Amino acid sequence: MVTNMMNNVVEKVVAGDVRTAARLIRDIDDELPGTREILKALHPHMVRAYVIGITGAPGVGKSTLVDQMIHHLRERGKTVGVLAVDPTSPFSGGAILGDRIRMQRHCMDDGVFIRSLATRGHFGGLTQSTRSAIDVLDAMGKDYIIVETVGVGQDEIDIVKSAHTTIVVVIPGMGDDVQAVKAGILEAGDIFLINKSDREGAHKTLADLKMMIDINQSKYDGGEWRPPVLMAEAVCDQGVVELLEEIGNHEQHINAMSEDLKIREKADIVRTALIEMIKSRLLKEILKPMTDSVEFERAVDSIVDGTRDPYSACDELAFPCTRP
Amino acid sequence: MVTNMMNNVVEKVVAGDVRTAARLIRDIDDELPGTREILKALHPHMVRAYVIGITGAPGVGKSTLVDQMIHHLRERGKTVGVLAVDPTSPFSGGAILGDRIRMQRHCMDDGVFIRSLATRGHFGGLTQSTRSAIDVLDAMGKDYIIVETVGVGQDEIDIVKSAHTTIVVVIPGMGDDVQAVKAGILEAGDIFLINKSDREGAHKTLADLKMMIDINQSKYDGGEWRPPVLMAEAVCDQGVVELLEEIGNHEQHINAMSEDLKIREKADIVRTALIEMIKSRLLKEILKPMTDSVEFERAVDSIVDGTRDPYSACDELAFPCTRP
Repeated sequence: MVTNMMNNVVEKVVAGDVRTAARLIRDIDDELPGTREILKALHPHMVRAYVIGITGAPGVGKSTLVDQMIHHLRERGKTVGVLAVDPTSPFSGGAILGDRIRMQRHCMDDGVFIRSLATRGHFGGLTQSTRSAIDVLDAMGKDYIIVETVGVGQDEIDIVKSAHTTIVVVIPGMGDDVQAVKAGILEAGDIFLINKSDREGAHKTLADLKMMIDINQSKYDGGEWRPPVLMAEAVCDQGVVELLEEIGNHEQHINAMSEDLKIREKADIVRTALIEMIKSRLLKEILKPMTDSVEFERAVDSIVDGTRDPYSACDELAFPCTRP
Repeated sequence: MVTNMMNNVVEKVVAGDVRTAARLIRDIDDELPGTREILKALHPHMVRAYVIGITGAPGVGKSTLVDQMIHHLRERGKTVGVLAVDPTSPFSGGAILGDRIRMQRHCMDDGVFIRSLATRGHFGGLTQSTRSAIDVLDAMGKDYIIVETVGVGQDEIDIVKSAHTTIVVVIPGMGDDVQAVKAGILEAGDIFLINKSDREGAHKTLADLKMMIDINQSKYDGGEWRPPVLMAEAVCDQGVVELLEEIGNHEQHINAMSEDLKIREKADIVRTALIEMIKSRLLKEILKPMTDSVEFERAVDSIVDGTRDPYSACDELAFPCTRP
């Protein structure tokens, strides 16, 4: 059921209309009905964008880096979409006392479109709405889409895994060695960037990261991409051009893969995306009504007053067929 | 259906048997059948433990702090359980090149029980298995249970919210101001601790945190707990005794609340826990079989070869009744 109104939205998004796209992304984030049909209709237009994931702990300077990347990509005439999933990002307005001003230099530029996505409660949906927002920016015809996340939690790992190139940002001196880089994210990293590299300990961090990467030597011998480790001081635009160059190298590496391998990699991404999509709808369409019910509140009361344990309450409420 | 074997497990856990408890927590984490019945049977024995949540970005020194807290609590004759949900924690073995040795000094002490929990994929369950593991440690009769998390992601926020006292650990100089403390975690913090306080910028971080806390002045005037901000150098045991003292103050504050308020707070915690429990089972008992099916793989193929869009595939696969 695609109405005229929907057709209108689709046409405007494909034409790159910022207001319509912004509203659609907000509606997707709010999980309004009708957005799914619009996304279906937009699907044939999603073809061009190169998706870059930027991830790293709060305070490593991801937003400053993104800001510089936008600057250089715009100089080359490329259009850029940015999605901030990081709740501490000044893009998303989540910085508590932070300087949100520094991002504003792009706000009058038609070729740059920056949106933030809310974090979610029990009913999930962050991964799904990020994916859908990427789809919208793609349909708008953006050349590059940069997704910024804090990179902790399974949701975020899933988000960065769906990027074409994922950059893991660390800073020197964040605890022992490279603890700051967690295992899941480490595997997802196509490029490692040591930001604030003027700080003490940068060379140790560099050596540690390289050692970690070298552990997979046999993979690289087999033709897999070897993640480079770069040094940068994003705040004074040091190392940003080199980063874009490595992103280009990684893109070439992907393009040079065999068709077979490309299909297998695409299937992995599609599989993850489809699981997330079904999950997001299960939670919204089954879990939410269930926990909004009178029976649910009655179960809560009985656990609080001690007449029932939560495990039995869960059985009785939601899984009566599996009761022993 | 409580078998003799289950009764045996329940008895041993209540008696504090470490091997049985360790195995049960592993079985819960692996979501083995039967664990739910054991948890039901353990429920009447869960009464005593005081749960402390410790959260903060990787590298802020949470594990060192926990190590010192264990030391002081043991000196006072208290038994302690530790659950490491942080994938970068040396407790959980997740530190890539980190020093896992420093925690080992407690490994011969019967009064200390340390377990780590795996991070999860699409089918979730981390929050749920952490809660169940807390229940097991509680039934074992531990006086204190310390749960260590990285504190990013909704799951982790839910975990720390269920603690009696939540400590948010930051270090000086992690980016502009206190960006490192994200909004959701900030609200969950009962005590803020600036670790590595010998570092440059500690006093600025202190001032920033205090300013942030002062924003809620009207709440404290209404009798709510005002989160103190402490300075510490956990590595040389500075500020740890003061932290334990503030935890005691917070416990007294909770005990002094009106019965009405206590019940309301308990209902909030129970509600969140019950939602998580139902969610965890929905994903395992409905989503997982669905995505393990032949139809699912067929849908993936059709998306990869471009004959279907993912939004329609999701409709057809999982929600045929909601198709337009």
